[in-house]
Amino acid sequence: MPNPLLIAPQWIVPVGPAPADSRNSERAHRALCDHAVVIEADRIAALLPLAEARRRYPHADTLALPGHLLAPGFVNLHSHAAMALLRGVGDDLPLGRWLHERIWPLESRLIGSQFVHDGALLAFHEMLLGGVTCVNDMYFFPEEAIAAAATLGLRSVHGIIVIDFPSAWASDAADYLRRGLELRDRMRDEPLVGFCLAPHAPYTVSDEALRRIATLSRELGLPIHTHVHETREEVETSVARHGMRPLERLADLGVVGPELIAVHAVHLSESDLRLLADAGAAVAHCPHSNLKLASGIAPTARMQELGIAVGIGTDGSASNNRLDLLGEARTAALLAKGHSGSAETWPAAHTLRAMTLDAARALGMDDRIGSIEAGKQADLVALDLSAAELAPVFDPVSHLVYSCGREHVQHVWVAGRHVVSKRQITDDAARLRIREVVGRTAVWHNRVGEILSGQV
Amino acid sequence: MPNPLLIAPQWIVPVGPAPADSRNSERAHRALCDHAVVIEADRIAALLPLAEARRRYPHADTLALPGHLLAPGFVNLHSHAAMALLRGVGDDLPLGRWLHERIWPLESRLIGSQFVHDGALLAFHEMLLGGVTCVNDMYFFPEEAIAAAATLGLRSVHGIIVIDFPSAWASDAADYLRRGLELRDRMRDEPLVGFCLAPHAPYTVSDEALRRIATLSRELGLPIHTHVHETREEVETSVARHGMRPLERLADLGVVGPELIAVHAVHLSESDLRLLADAGAAVAHCPHSNLKLASGIAPTARMQELGIAVGIGTDGSASNNRLDLLGEARTAALLAKGHSGSAETWPAAHTLRAMTLDAARALGMDDRIGSIEAGKQADLVALDLSAAELAPVFDPVSHLVYSCGREHVQHVWVAGRHVVSKRQITDDAARLRIREVVGRTAVWHNRVGEILSGQV
Repeated sequence: MPNPLLIAPQWIVPVGPAPADSRNSERAHRALCDHAVVIEADRIAALLPLAEARRRYPHADTLALPGHLLAPGFVNLHSHAAMALLRGVGDDLPLGRWLHERIWPLESRLIGSQFVHDGALLAFHEMLLGGVTCVNDMYFFPEEAIAAAATLGLRSVHGIIVIDFPSAWASDAADYLRRGLELRDRMRDEPLVGFCLAPHAPYTVSDEALRRIATLSRELGLPIHTHVHETREEVETSVARHGMRPLERLADLGVVGPELIAVHAVHLSESDLRLLADAGAAVAHCPHSNLKLASGIAPTARMQELGIAVGIGTDGSASNNRLDLLGEARTAALLAKGHSGSAETWPAAHTLRAMTLDAARALGMDDRIGSIEAGKQADLVALDLSAAELAPVFDPVSHLVYSCGREHVQHVWVAGRHVVSKRQITDDAARLRIREVVGRTAVWHNRVGEILSGQV
Repeated sequence: MPNPLLIAPQWIVPVGPAPADSRNSERAHRALCDHAVVIEADRIAALLPLAEARRRYPHADTLALPGHLLAPGFVNLHSHAAMALLRGVGDDLPLGRWLHERIWPLESRLIGSQFVHDGALLAFHEMLLGGVTCVNDMYFFPEEAIAAAATLGLRSVHGIIVIDFPSAWASDAADYLRRGLELRDRMRDEPLVGFCLAPHAPYTVSDEALRRIATLSRELGLPIHTHVHETREEVETSVARHGMRPLERLADLGVVGPELIAVHAVHLSESDLRLLADAGAAVAHCPHSNLKLASGIAPTARMQELGIAVGIGTDGSASNNRLDLLGEARTAALLAKGHSGSAETWPAAHTLRAMTLDAARALGMDDRIGSIEAGKQADLVALDLSAAELAPVFDPVSHLVYSCGREHVQHVWVAGRHVVSKRQITDDAARLRIREVVGRTAVWHNRVGEILSGQV
């Protein structure tokens, strides 16, 4: 067994303990100086004052990181990774034309194992270099996204997608569920792979399938990850069709509980918000996607007031051409202020928690990831705050959210593995695979061009 | 005289000609392949198909940039560069506390030659590495900001600041004007330095001073750069005090014309918008600052409809901790869509023009900068689009706005000088000066701490 690793950065922001234990939360969001994190195998063995860490772990290898901030790895709470291959094919179009003229025709022709593998590898690579250590993904052929994540050493949660339309992956709701649950069984011994149930959206999944999903969620202890209240139209159509708003209908079917991750959640009435808060449901907030598709601006300041756990998601590259969780979180913080009229909402510490512990909680994984605490998985990110464009540093947590970019992410660990060092993927085989896939994007580029021009 | 330089990137986006000549504007915003830009001394000698450029300039040195996009250098239409030293001292505070407890007490103690020099050098360095080739700055001791810009080879426009309050720089409105105009006289032979008149805001400058500024603007051909309609309160206070909205009052005093750069312009009625449009005035849009201080969201989609020239500004580091014009422009585009409900507003080409030619037009400099056209100054930026996180590239202009970050800026030229190469400042003396200033930020950090803790 290798020696423990003692990481000694200039600052450590533990983020934990969980919000339920709020006594120490103020301290947990401040940056600790003269402290060290000790990693043993895949876990955080200790967070201690530096001198004490050196005494207690005399045989540890030491990584000194002067000028660096060490934080929990970022959790991307909503993505469609494979869509990286469609980055920028439908910009500046209204939602209807975006879907009907670009995304759906392309997906119907392109989706398959290779497409998902290549797109997911590109997307996960981008996320990992930007400090994401865990991603909650939703797409067809999840076994390919799992393989891509494994290549990079990224922790991932995969939606068992359910949609009332056939695709190259499955034929109907029952088939989607069967395939997804089979995959989950095959992957049960993979420590970095998790699953949730992922009904696509209330408007694409029947009552019957949603009821079955609610039952499975309780039986198997799986979160439910679904797009909901993304657009005004979606809410109006549901009222017209079902006599209920989408969240009311989901609640009626047993889907709204602590296991729910409500993706987008843009158009919410006060009673929708209270429904989520009372149920202990979480929200996956995707501000760039909501802005770019002109869906609107989610009421995240009110969510904070109501104590709803909000995580941040990049969404897929087709609606957010940059899978940059740090940039997404900065926009989340700024937008909450500008939209609500309160500069005090979404302070930096809250935003950092949304990127880490609150997203982990939404996934039911806050016992394992989301904060720097002894016993948790060693999912960590180190940012270099010594760059000229970051001087001077008055408050490192504020700097992390408001000043840093993904370009400052220098090191990333997932389950104790040092997967990114000095902004480079450490694993030779992974680097080679990425080069292969980047090379192959020329082929995908041509196929997309042929499909859009009607040549094939 | 050195040989001409022939730059042969994969794509060139000329942006020009000016919008008035709209026949070619569609083409100007598309990316040209197999073209080259030739630089002679400080100017663009030609934009030609590559083969023709090689024939016509056989003695040119060639810089091949495969995978790169060449665009006009970015113009930052509003900054307070020196405030880089106050980056992050007042985060998550409401405007009143931000001003009264942080910014004003600190500025009153700190402002002086050294503070402005050091802060401006840090800020300009950050901007330049992010592709900014021209900045419109507003602060006290502008001669120090001019010196900092000269160190880096950055083009800069400096506000002749006027405010009805004494500072370390001047005592009253007349004194501010006198000092600013004297400085302008001294700098008249500096090709990279320009000036505008900069009354701080309608609520801090008297009618008399504003009338004098309007007259001087006409006599000297100088733009007028002022904060206006930033907050709802500002508008309400003006109505209570003057019986007019701020822009009505400015119009009354002769300040609203094609020379006006209205900074922020967040709270605008339809008649305010029409006043700006009819006058041919420009707006400096600072979305991050407006969001962070919870001022609100400017109606930029409507500005586009009315044909108001909108440029992008980072504002100062105290209200926008990241002086990243590309990120600012991306937010401008996304926010325009999300706020207006139209995904089609602010398409990528419009956003790129706001970052370049429209900002140049606002400064009255579109005859010299803002687009890649023969005869204009060689202010250029090259971004590397070959990175894995940018593959595949369907539309390079869309990529520039929605996918690229400042981390992709590889080369920058200002007036033909190659000031940034492979993400590094080329000039040894400039690099040394920056290191000195970064070292000195520790001193500023301590002084800020002492002032805020009431020790001095």
